[in-house]
Amino acid sequence: MFYDPNEGLSRSELDALALQRFQETLARASKSPAYQKKNLPSTLRSLQEVRELPFTLKQDLRDAFPYGFLAAPLESCVRLHSSSGTTGNPTVMLYTQNDLDNWSKLMARCMSLSGANRHDIFQNIMGYGLFTGGIGFHYGAERLGMLTIPIGPGNSKRQGWFMKHLGVSVVHILPSYAFRLYSHLKEEGVDPKELPLRIAFIGAEPHSEAMRREIERLYGIKAFNSFGLSEMNGPGVAFECQEQSGMHLWEDYYYAEIIDPETLEVLPDGEWGELVISSIHREAMPLVRYRTRDLTRIIPEPCKCGRVHRRIDRIKGRTDDMLIINGVNLFPMQIEKTILGMKGVGSHYIIEVHKEQFLDKLYVKIEMTEEAFSGSLSELEALQKSLTAALTSELGVNPKVKLVERGSLPVEEGKAKRVYDYREKELA
Amino acid sequence: MFYDPNEGLSRSELDALALQRFQETLARASKSPAYQKKNLPSTLRSLQEVRELPFTLKQDLRDAFPYGFLAAPLESCVRLHSSSGTTGNPTVMLYTQNDLDNWSKLMARCMSLSGANRHDIFQNIMGYGLFTGGIGFHYGAERLGMLTIPIGPGNSKRQGWFMKHLGVSVVHILPSYAFRLYSHLKEEGVDPKELPLRIAFIGAEPHSEAMRREIERLYGIKAFNSFGLSEMNGPGVAFECQEQSGMHLWEDYYYAEIIDPETLEVLPDGEWGELVISSIHREAMPLVRYRTRDLTRIIPEPCKCGRVHRRIDRIKGRTDDMLIINGVNLFPMQIEKTILGMKGVGSHYIIEVHKEQFLDKLYVKIEMTEEAFSGSLSELEALQKSLTAALTSELGVNPKVKLVERGSLPVEEGKAKRVYDYREKELA
Repeated sequence: MFYDPNEGLSRSELDALALQRFQETLARASKSPAYQKKNLPSTLRSLQEVRELPFTLKQDLRDAFPYGFLAAPLESCVRLHSSSGTTGNPTVMLYTQNDLDNWSKLMARCMSLSGANRHDIFQNIMGYGLFTGGIGFHYGAERLGMLTIPIGPGNSKRQGWFMKHLGVSVVHILPSYAFRLYSHLKEEGVDPKELPLRIAFIGAEPHSEAMRREIERLYGIKAFNSFGLSEMNGPGVAFECQEQSGMHLWEDYYYAEIIDPETLEVLPDGEWGELVISSIHREAMPLVRYRTRDLTRIIPEPCKCGRVHRRIDRIKGRTDDMLIINGVNLFPMQIEKTILGMKGVGSHYIIEVHKEQFLDKLYVKIEMTEEAFSGSLSELEALQKSLTAALTSELGVNPKVKLVERGSLPVEEGKAKRVYDYREKELA
Repeated sequence: MFYDPNEGLSRSELDALALQRFQETLARASKSPAYQKKNLPSTLRSLQEVRELPFTLKQDLRDAFPYGFLAAPLESCVRLHSSSGTTGNPTVMLYTQNDLDNWSKLMARCMSLSGANRHDIFQNIMGYGLFTGGIGFHYGAERLGMLTIPIGPGNSKRQGWFMKHLGVSVVHILPSYAFRLYSHLKEEGVDPKELPLRIAFIGAEPHSEAMRREIERLYGIKAFNSFGLSEMNGPGVAFECQEQSGMHLWEDYYYAEIIDPETLEVLPDGEWGELVISSIHREAMPLVRYRTRDLTRIIPEPCKCGRVHRRIDRIKGRTDDMLIINGVNLFPMQIEKTILGMKGVGSHYIIEVHKEQFLDKLYVKIEMTEEAFSGSLSELEALQKSLTAALTSELGVNPKVKLVERGSLPVEEGKAKRVYDYREKELA
């Protein structure tokens, strides 16, 4: 039933393995210059003691650039990934050959959850290079035995051509790009439902449940959520099974906690907070209690699929991109969730925040559908009113909704930029 | 002494291995639909019989799109590469897991020739994706144990930053980009000779010996030529050793012949002609007597390094891009070779061919150096005259030389486009 026997471990087996691997990790990590500075203990007696260990922050990685967290000889490392590093030092991640093998095996396990297998043809529509998303799925797909097409992102014409002529059955795609590609296919006269496509792996940018269901509906496929971050190898940290209800976080590789980002206290399962992960199965650069800044919760109920590895909920946002509007916390994701369920508007929107007379003012610009745009003025007004009401109810603040013509909002090839916050500038 | 024991095989051992592998290849390839159509024999008794086998053309691959040449079950394939396919069907290449392993091993062998090893830090400045160049070196570098940075092409600022701050000692780079990056580094105040860089692998576009020596001089490194094509896995078909005098074509993987592209007769070692290769160590899609269109020769003398694998000479051009100017054959490479040795001009040039009064007219536009550009008019005239004389002597035709300001010729991020042939258009 399982691709990897470790998927079937019981709670006590998983905990025993996690403790053993955490101990091995501490024994090595505690010798790195960066963790020596943090006085990281070289062992622990039980998983209950994890919460006493120091946190690791993104800034710690920057400060230790490039090799401060290295827990293995540099000459045993065969791969380096890096953030783009637009501000200050980039964060650099290192991998031994064993790390790559383990990561590939884990990615293969993730994809196998969806039912993907060696008979599938897999088009990897994600960027290769320093970004871990493309190359992580690539190695995993080959490991699983899928015929892997390393096409990378962009060029919808070519994407569509390959999907159609090579019998592609599985894709890895940005949710926002899935919509763009759909429009392109329709324009080319291709019915996406007629393609042999059956599975999409989506991730690497925030998206709502409604967006996922819409992708599934438009293409007639199953779309599976993926979670990862380069500090924890890259993709493959958590992945959805066929139940599509939360992502199994692989406890034989990662030890997860949810903390209150203010008090830093560990929260009980079920409560929302910041995800903190320790990589307990890495050689080159294991990280202890890394603060991901991602907001989620551990789903306390057991999964119907039978796997004991605990699930995390959809990422609600990041502690970084939480917007505080006149004292009220909100996340772009909430806006997406609200508008995607509504008639007359598309999936593309942006958020602008301005300072007006020393108060925060939230603007939401949403693209209308073709039909809504050509409707009467009173219909538009009604649409605007109902959107404003729905958003106010969801957010707890009163936004100014502006409906705009389809295609008029900025579009980027990579991740969609949703939030434009002008407040600092306007106060300066 | 050798990274791979097969490097040290004697002539008789190599021939015996080649015959055995050729026989295994024919046994499988002869069952593919495309080779059944060509009546490919299922075995051969000696390597002398190779010349009786049918050729395989690029057009055959297009016609058999996508899986006509497949000699293994499709579900055993884990990788697909493809040409860009701007005209008609792309040519598609397939790989089993064994093919990828063998290719990676071979790439590691190639790079080890240069002295690169697991202590090196390797920046792979080539495109990843469907193109085999980036990903081929990537897998080989990891196999060799180098710390591999999958940065990909473009963004000179970032390239320079990584080279400087991560102690990069080996790069894989387009020759034309090596010059661009050099200018960028100088502008940033970095002396490329002060970098820890020691080795560059160059290839994927035609370049002259003078260009290679110039790259070596500018950076204070050794630059090694690489040869490959996606139909034969990708890079790794032939590679230079420390002697830097011709590229060893690996006879345990590939069987090479040189033919006269007109008569199709096999030419003796030493004579220039079209390179024809059979891949004798591939599972998914071995090709028999594939016409590469590349013009070279087999160097008849033994190499001082002791390896018996025969060397091919620098690629002189392609049967495709040979220009016929009023009946005289010439190659863009000859122009490059000539101008790069001359004072006052840079490495960037383009060739234009026009029809003027029913005769072919060759224009060579060359960028001057900063100093030459600010010289006197009579100095410019003298430079133009000496260039014209040198080119006429090399080419056997009389070109019109135009000196242009530095930075005024079109620049592309990928391969430099050198030839603009307007004749067909002008006759139409």
